[in-house]
Amino acid sequence: MVFQSATYGKVLVLDGVIQLTERDECAYQEMITHLPLCSIPNPKKVLVIGGGDGGVLREVARHSSVEHIDICEIDKMVVDVSKQHFPDVAIGYEDPRVTLHVGDGVAFLKAAQEGSYDAVIVDSSDPIGPAEELFKKPFFESVAKALRPGGVMCTQAESIWLHMDIIEGIVENCRQVFKGSVNYAWTTVPTYPSGVIGFMLCSTEGPEVDFKNPINPIDVQENQIKSTIPLKFYNQEIHAAAFCLPSFAKKVIESKAEK
Amino acid sequence: MVFQSATYGKVLVLDGVIQLTERDECAYQEMITHLPLCSIPNPKKVLVIGGGDGGVLREVARHSSVEHIDICEIDKMVVDVSKQHFPDVAIGYEDPRVTLHVGDGVAFLKAAQEGSYDAVIVDSSDPIGPAEELFKKPFFESVAKALRPGGVMCTQAESIWLHMDIIEGIVENCRQVFKGSVNYAWTTVPTYPSGVIGFMLCSTEGPEVDFKNPINPIDVQENQIKSTIPLKFYNQEIHAAAFCLPSFAKKVIESKAEK
Repeated sequence: MVFQSATYGKVLVLDGVIQLTERDECAYQEMITHLPLCSIPNPKKVLVIGGGDGGVLREVARHSSVEHIDICEIDKMVVDVSKQHFPDVAIGYEDPRVTLHVGDGVAFLKAAQEGSYDAVIVDSSDPIGPAEELFKKPFFESVAKALRPGGVMCTQAESIWLHMDIIEGIVENCRQVFKGSVNYAWTTVPTYPSGVIGFMLCSTEGPEVDFKNPINPIDVQENQIKSTIPLKFYNQEIHAAAFCLPSFAKKVIESKAEK
Repeated sequence: MVFQSATYGKVLVLDGVIQLTERDECAYQEMITHLPLCSIPNPKKVLVIGGGDGGVLREVARHSSVEHIDICEIDKMVVDVSKQHFPDVAIGYEDPRVTLHVGDGVAFLKAAQEGSYDAVIVDSSDPIGPAEELFKKPFFESVAKALRPGGVMCTQAESIWLHMDIIEGIVENCRQVFKGSVNYAWTTVPTYPSGVIGFMLCSTEGPEVDFKNPINPIDVQENQIKSTIPLKFYNQEIHAAAFCLPSFAKKVIESKAEK
């Protein structure tokens, strides 16, 4: 469903859950993309699972080092509806480096060449529903296998206010699978339940990744493709701040995340 | 109005606007209190304007250096309803250092002894409505006068997602009145409009206050009154992170806030 809201512009709804609004999509798309990509030097090959609206593609495309972007979206209608109603989001598809694969992300990753991606971004719907598999260990194992040593994954990881039990499970799964860094970050997205959304950021064994201290800044103009519109939300300070957790969440997450 | 909600526990509503819920009040009360009080050494005398529910009092009382807490609340019914329905919030009134004054905060401040407070916390309702005066220059001038040199004010300052025009005005007023630091911080409060709330943090001329780097930590146990329950939300990292603004807000606020 697509509808026009009074305060947040046009809204995209899937299975009764708000996926994005024109007003606040910048927070989600910029953070889920630049938190991983600004944490590694020179990302070249990026895979997006889900993200059919094209917003993550738009953000990945800001990185001039990127040579190839695969996206695997299971629902072609999301792509079409976004192109029709959200041109500022679907603009991501116009980048010539993008290849769209319509299909199941789980199957796509299983068939992916080992160690071929610098980053995998999982822009999925919630773990209760069709995207359930994308939060389980076998899926994370496929992601880890598809990543190069020291490659990074970022996946949406629910709300610290509402889903600490689910988050605890995700952190535990990631800790078991990813042998590099495992971190939780969060940001404000007003139209998501409780107004926040979290991200799991993990890296595979190899060159160390310090997610909390971005080494590949995008908010300095030179690094961006010239034609893109400026970032609305992301900057280096908000990158580092995203890893600072309220005490109630910190206690649970760090007990799972630390070795 | 007080009602029981499905996800957020009991809810307090004033004039149709949610003031607090049991689930997320910790974020607001802890941040509006410890952002200012952890930024100055040894706060002794604190004034709370509004905040009739008692939550800010509960947080101020954690600071063992504090000797006297004045609170000026205009609406006695808020105090009574909080004591009846929100005992974990109204518990703030049980601290022997607290003196409740029922009356108009504007008048109270005008009559306050010059330079007598280390900190003034303005826990008001929104600037459109009865609390309008609390966001105007004359009020800020009374606050500045009541503070000691290098004293601090923290006032709730709306949502960066919804009220940038109002925030711009508040920042401009504060910049003109407060000759020390003028900073904007924000935090997540799910049940407030857009899920975030901001704070203006200002200091008067005198010993410099660096709000972004708290020098009076409260999250180390020794500093707290022994009988208090642990902090749920606030810690030193989230203090510093609260000053990191999304780019769209930073642009507007820093253009007003910087000299």
